[in-house]
Parts: sequence; C-alpha cells; structure tokens
Amino acid sequence: MKLLDLYAKMKGDLDVIERELARSVTSDHALLSETSTHLLKAGGKRIRPVFVLLAGKFGDYRLDVLERIAVPLELIHMASLVHDDVIDNAQTRRGQLTVKSKWDNRIAMYTGDYIYGKALTVATELRNPLVHQILSKAMVQMCVGEMEQIRDFFNTEQSIRNYLRRIRRKTALLIAISCQLGAVASDANRTIANQLYRFGYNVGMAYQIGDDLLDLLGTEKQIGKPPGSDIRQGNITLPVLLALQEPALRDGLLNEINKIRESDGAGETNTVLNIIRKSGGIAIAEDLVSRYIAKAIAALNQLPNIPAKKSLTDIARFVSKRSY
Amino acid sequence: MKLLDLYAKMKGDLDVIERELARSVTSDHALLSETSTHLLKAGGKRIRPVFVLLAGKFGDYRLDVLERIAVPLELIHMASLVHDDVIDNAQTRRGQLTVKSKWDNRIAMYTGDYIYGKALTVATELRNPLVHQILSKAMVQMCVGEMEQIRDFFNTEQSIRNYLRRIRRKTALLIAISCQLGAVASDANRTIANQLYRFGYNVGMAYQIGDDLLDLLGTEKQIGKPPGSDIRQGNITLPVLLALQEPALRDGLLNEINKIRESDGAGETNTVLNIIRKSGGIAIAEDLVSRYIAKAIAALNQLPNIPAKKSLTDIARFVSKRSY
Repeated sequence: MKLLDLYAKMKGDLDVIERELARSVTSDHALLSETSTHLLKAGGKRIRPVFVLLAGKFGDYRLDVLERIAVPLELIHMASLVHDDVIDNAQTRRGQLTVKSKWDNRIAMYTGDYIYGKALTVATELRNPLVHQILSKAMVQMCVGEMEQIRDFFNTEQSIRNYLRRIRRKTALLIAISCQLGAVASDANRTIANQLYRFGYNVGMAYQIGDDLLDLLGTEKQIGKPPGSDIRQGNITLPVLLALQEPALRDGLLNEINKIRESDGAGETNTVLNIIRKSGGIAIAEDLVSRYIAKAIAALNQLPNIPAKKSLTDIARFVSKRSY
Repeated sequence: MKLLDLYAKMKGDLDVIERELARSVTSDHALLSETSTHLLKAGGKRIRPVFVLLAGKFGDYRLDVLERIAVPLELIHMASLVHDDVIDNAQTRRGQLTVKSKWDNRIAMYTGDYIYGKALTVATELRNPLVHQILSKAMVQMCVGEMEQIRDFFNTEQSIRNYLRRIRRKTALLIAISCQLGAVASDANRTIANQLYRFGYNVGMAYQIGDDLLDLLGTEKQIGKPPGSDIRQGNITLPVLLALQEPALRDGLLNEINKIRESDGAGETNTVLNIIRKSGGIAIAEDLVSRYIAKAIAALNQLPNIPAKKSLTDIARFVSKRSY
C-alpha cells in the first residue's frame, strides 16, 4: 500500500487527532495560541500519531485514549522543533517562516515551553503514571541529545558511535515510545509493546540517517530549506564523518568545513556538498538505513498478523526509500 | 520564631531535599550537569520546598513522598529562572553569573528544557496522576505569565488587574500548589489542602509585589542585581502603574520610561527611580502586600493548631516585612 493510501484509510482518526492538537494549544493567551497554531499549520507528516494509532490496533483500540498519547507526542516534537529553530537560527521550516523569524527568539522560547507544558497536561488527562513517566523521561533525553548536538558542532573528530547516540536521543527515542505507548495505553501485552518499541527505535534511526542524507543530497524544494543546512550550522552528520575517513578526501574536506565555520553561517556549501556527494560515505549511510529498516521489520515478525502490521511494514519500507 | 530558626529546625529534611535536587539534575551529560549544578549552587531560599514540607505536616508526613513534590517544584522554578535570564539578558542573579552569561543563550535554553523535563520525571516517581496534572498545568500557566510579561513590556497603559493576573501566573500559582501538593501527597483532607492553596496563593501575591518593590527601593547588595532592573527591561510593575495614575507625575514619568525604552537597556534609571520612590504608589503597594498577608493568615485560621501552622504564619509575617 502506498503511504498516501494509508493516510487516506486512517483519515477519520487522524482528523480527530488534528482537531485535538489544535484545541490543545488554544489558550486565553492570544499570542501563544497564534504562535502554536502557526506551528501546527506548518504541517508535518504526523508520523508519531500514525504510529500511536497503528500500535493501538494491537490492543483494545480506543481513540479517546490514544489521542491523549498521540497529541502529547506530536506536541513534544513540535516544541523541540521551535527551540531547535532558535538554536539553528533557522528562517524557514517546511517552507514556512519559523516562529523565531516571524516573531522573535524570546517568543519562540516561551512558545516551546508552553507546548511542552501543554503536552504533559494532555497526557495527564490519562490517569496512567507510567505513561507520564515515559513521556517526561523522553523529554529529558531529547534535551540531552540537543545539547550533545551543540557540544559537537563542528567537531570533526567525533566518533560514529557518538553520532548514533545523539540521533537515538534526538529522534529515535520519541518514535520508539510512540509505538510503545500506543500499545501500552491499549493494554496490549508487554511483549507486544516491547517489540513495537524496537520497531519504532529502528525506524527512527533509519529515518534520521535518511533525513541527514536528504539534507546533503536533496534540493531546496524537496527539503523545504536550503541543502547543506546541517553542515552550515556545524551539525556533522554520518555521511560527513564517513567521508572524513577517506584519506583522499579528508584534508580538503576539513579545510572546507573550517571555511564554513569561520564564515559564521554565511559561507557557501557547494564545494563541501560536492565532496561529500562523491564520497563513499553516501552508500555506506544508505546501507545503514537499510539495515535499520530490516531490523525494524524483523521486530514486527513476532506480532499477530493484523492489518496494522502490514501498514507498519509499509511505512518502514517507505522510510528506506525516501528519494534524495 | 525568626526565619533562620525555622530553617535551622527544618535543616535535616531540607538537607535531604538539597541532596535530591543535586542528584536529580546529574546526568551522563557533563555540560548539562555542570550548568544545572551551577544554578543549584547559586542558592535561593528554597521557599517552595519549605512550604511543601510544612504543608505535609497537616497529613501523614513522609519525607520520601514529599521530596518528590518539593524537588520538582524547585526545579520548575529554576528552569523558569534560567529561561527568564535569556529573555531579560541578565548577567547576574543572586550575585552569581547566569547560565546565559557564563555559557550562552543556547545552552541556557536547553538547560531550562532539561530541568523542566527532570522536574516532571521526579514527580512521576510518585504514581499520583493528580500531582502530575497539577504540576504540568502550573508549568503552562507560568509560561503564559512569562509571555504576558513580554507582551506588556513598556506598556504603560496596562491595567492593575493585568499586572495582578500576570504575577498570579508567574509567581503565586507555583507557591499555592507547593502548599496544596504538600497536603495532597500527605493525604490530608481536601479542605485542608484547599486552605493551604489559598494561603500559598496570597503569600505568593504578597511576595511578588514585595519583590517588585524591592527592585525599586533596594540597593544592589540587597537584591543581588542593580536596582531598577525591571523597568530597564520594560517590566512595568505595580508601584510604577500607581505612580502613573498621579497627574503631577504622569507626564514626567512617561517621558523617562520612554527614554529608557529608546536607550535599549543602556539608559540610566536614577531619575525614574526617584520619581517612583517619591510617589504615593509605594505606600499603596505596601498596603496591598499587607492585605494579601492578612488573607494568607486568615486562610490558616481553619487549620488545626499544629506547630507547622505557626511556622507558616511566621513566614507570612516575614514576607510582609521584607526590608527595602
């Protein structure tokens, strides 16, 4: 099944989530409602809600319960993006002005805080302490991941293990718990919840590596912001680390990265992108995406053969084939 | 009893809270542990933990439960301060360098996010969904209060009702729930918890008005930062709003506030401070402090006569007599 067909099939329930998302960030404070709604309307694939709903199918599927998992997860993701944009000094995301650029950094900071708070408030409407605990721990891990990213800006000596740990915290963990919590909240048994966690974790890792590849290989139209944004802000991703391991490329690449660093965000990235695109790092990173996807699909093997299992497999396959 | 004697009497339990605070922000991420520990060591009166512990005396006092209320409340307060300092561009707080000044704005932002997350993680160790809900709602309200403060920077036309609503969200609410949750977590009955909430709310209002007076009347040594910091950043507090209502002062004051606004934080505040200090607004604000304190003490009247009731009364009296 194509991804669009999957979304079409889930449209009724996703529309409910969308309405709840909008409702959750509406407050008596006009500006916070406005900034949050701007963020919501900028769109996104709502992949975390999709995972929550599909995972819920392995237990007792109750939309009124699942929405209190899906909405907080999407909100935590949104809050982290709005704070990211402050750090990255990003002007656009998904082709829309960021909150920090349409308003300012201060407003973006409090919008993020507000959305984090709202996320946890919605989750606490479910009187399930385990869910609250998993969500707040994930929020902590995401912050640690973001701090690691700042610490490692322009660090060309970091290990690949370092990169993988960072994307685990920054991305994979939230997707893993989307799958896990959908099952937990639906009273699916623990083995099922754990397998779904494994599925989500591996899809999340593959997704982030794919995203990092896209930033190097995609066009501005495809990715909604100029290619090379990562390296311009100092975020050294997997294909760059791999290219740095090639003796023939290393010195030239270090030199170019240094130029970008010294230009303070204003430098051109064409040369560095060309070096990396020609490197063997691209194929190795793509291969790693495939391996994570294979592990994700393997995690599904133990699960009962319900339609949701096929949908999760389809999503995993789609992540593995994102076009750069 | 003097306040120092009260702290001395509670020292054993407050030391436990202090250790738990330190433990709670320690992570495997060195920089986050360092920035958070810097914040903790900058001190503070730990008034929220004090209220939690005293409120706990009205029920079944269990320190291992109360610490999981006191630590999150102090952490939420700290996280809001570190984000405030970014907004206010503050170089020092309590005579110590702020995180944003010792490190930078980006690190301060993620340190705040991290501490908010840790706060909720500690709270979720108590499997009490009501506690989680009250905490996350308080976090949302505080963000709304902070945003209102930004919106109203240099707004000399705002009403006093507006000011009071803002400090309720920014300050009074967290102190109110410190008292309430100490009782709730100790299984005190609902009437007691509600009266303690009322006590905390009124003390919190008095405290913030007192703090705003202190910023206008105190010396740099007393307040740990230069006097007039509020007005320099555009935060128009109660005595200023009251002085603006005096026809003889209004035009001169508006003119001076406008100069400060146009100087973009670099202007001198002596003239404006002198106008406000001579105004009748000081006495009216001081009177309002006394009225909130009287209401706080009245809220205690219904409560059983245990030593903690006397301690809460002493704290309320102390708040009413802070020396400017």
